[in-house]
Amino acid sequence: MEFKDIVKKRYATKKFDGRKIPQEKVDELLEIIRMSASSFGLQPWKIKIIEDLELKEKLLPVSWNQPQITTCSHLLVFCANTDIEGNIAKYGKIMNESGLADEKIKNSTSYMLKSMENKDDMQRLHWAQRQVYLAVANAINGAKSLGFDSCPMEGFQPEEYSKILELPINLVPTTLVTIGYAADEPNKKLRFSKEDMFF
Amino acid sequence: MEFKDIVKKRYATKKFDGRKIPQEKVDELLEIIRMSASSFGLQPWKIKIIEDLELKEKLLPVSWNQPQITTCSHLLVFCANTDIEGNIAKYGKIMNESGLADEKIKNSTSYMLKSMENKDDMQRLHWAQRQVYLAVANAINGAKSLGFDSCPMEGFQPEEYSKILELPINLVPTTLVTIGYAADEPNKKLRFSKEDMFF
Repeated sequence: MEFKDIVKKRYATKKFDGRKIPQEKVDELLEIIRMSASSFGLQPWKIKIIEDLELKEKLLPVSWNQPQITTCSHLLVFCANTDIEGNIAKYGKIMNESGLADEKIKNSTSYMLKSMENKDDMQRLHWAQRQVYLAVANAINGAKSLGFDSCPMEGFQPEEYSKILELPINLVPTTLVTIGYAADEPNKKLRFSKEDMFF
Repeated sequence: MEFKDIVKKRYATKKFDGRKIPQEKVDELLEIIRMSASSFGLQPWKIKIIEDLELKEKLLPVSWNQPQITTCSHLLVFCANTDIEGNIAKYGKIMNESGLADEKIKNSTSYMLKSMENKDDMQRLHWAQRQVYLAVANAINGAKSLGFDSCPMEGFQPEEYSKILELPINLVPTTLVTIGYAADEPNKKLRFSKEDMFF
């Protein structure tokens, strides 16, 4: 399917039919998410993948009891990773593994560290969260490209997710993406006009 | 091109060759951006499109003198729209035009207004900015799907952009996306491993 058709056909599925997405398709989606763009390429996120129904049921009441949570095949919890220095160090390591010259790696990582040093904790979190949405867009478009459906969801209690999933403090649940096979029909896509959106 | 190949081949172009993208291709990209997902479908953004070289040259020094600004075909300034109540009203209007029942429109817009009433100005801005990144992802993947290149850029001075472009206070420049034909070659795409990114 062409990308322009993917973005037209994708919609926020409100209910899934409970069928499991085959593992090889899930793996293809993860690869699409893994390729997402991010500022400096720093990928300041980690993504928790939940298949277990019992765990989904525990998360349901802290997700406004939305039916996507328990009817989906997989629940992806996109967490912003606020350990940005840790990410920069990891990024330096993969630059090294890819054969980049030490001098170049040092310059790049110094530059990244410098760009972050004036950001306070809240600014770091918001910066990381914005990047997360690039990965979310790949997830929802990727799902449609692979023949299944998705719903991006902000309606949940991040602190409760942190507790239930026992997340370390640097991982902040930011958005959910549920994936599966739709058991609903799309509403008409409502968008502002071209004249209103662009100027 | 399949979406999984688009996300692999897309890269942040550092220099464009100055050629103009044909208007019909630009229009196709705008349509892809217009279809972007957003929380509640509220599309809290407006996008300024700049072709004029003189204006690009004015923006260059407040964009860290990055060559993409003046070598690109079009410079897209993605602004978060913090007038969320205004957006909800506009959304109500397009719901009405699409033939939805008054009762349903009233319920939806009340629900949206309620979800926003506890957000302070900073939270509203950050919420809108996160949504902008969904549209940015569509822009950069869309460009590659249509046969040209792009660069998403956070390295610029938003306040100076607001002044030069004489933006109203509710439009906050958040990210740039330059589009055109690449005059560089992609570096190797460096990504954290699947085992590191997903858990």
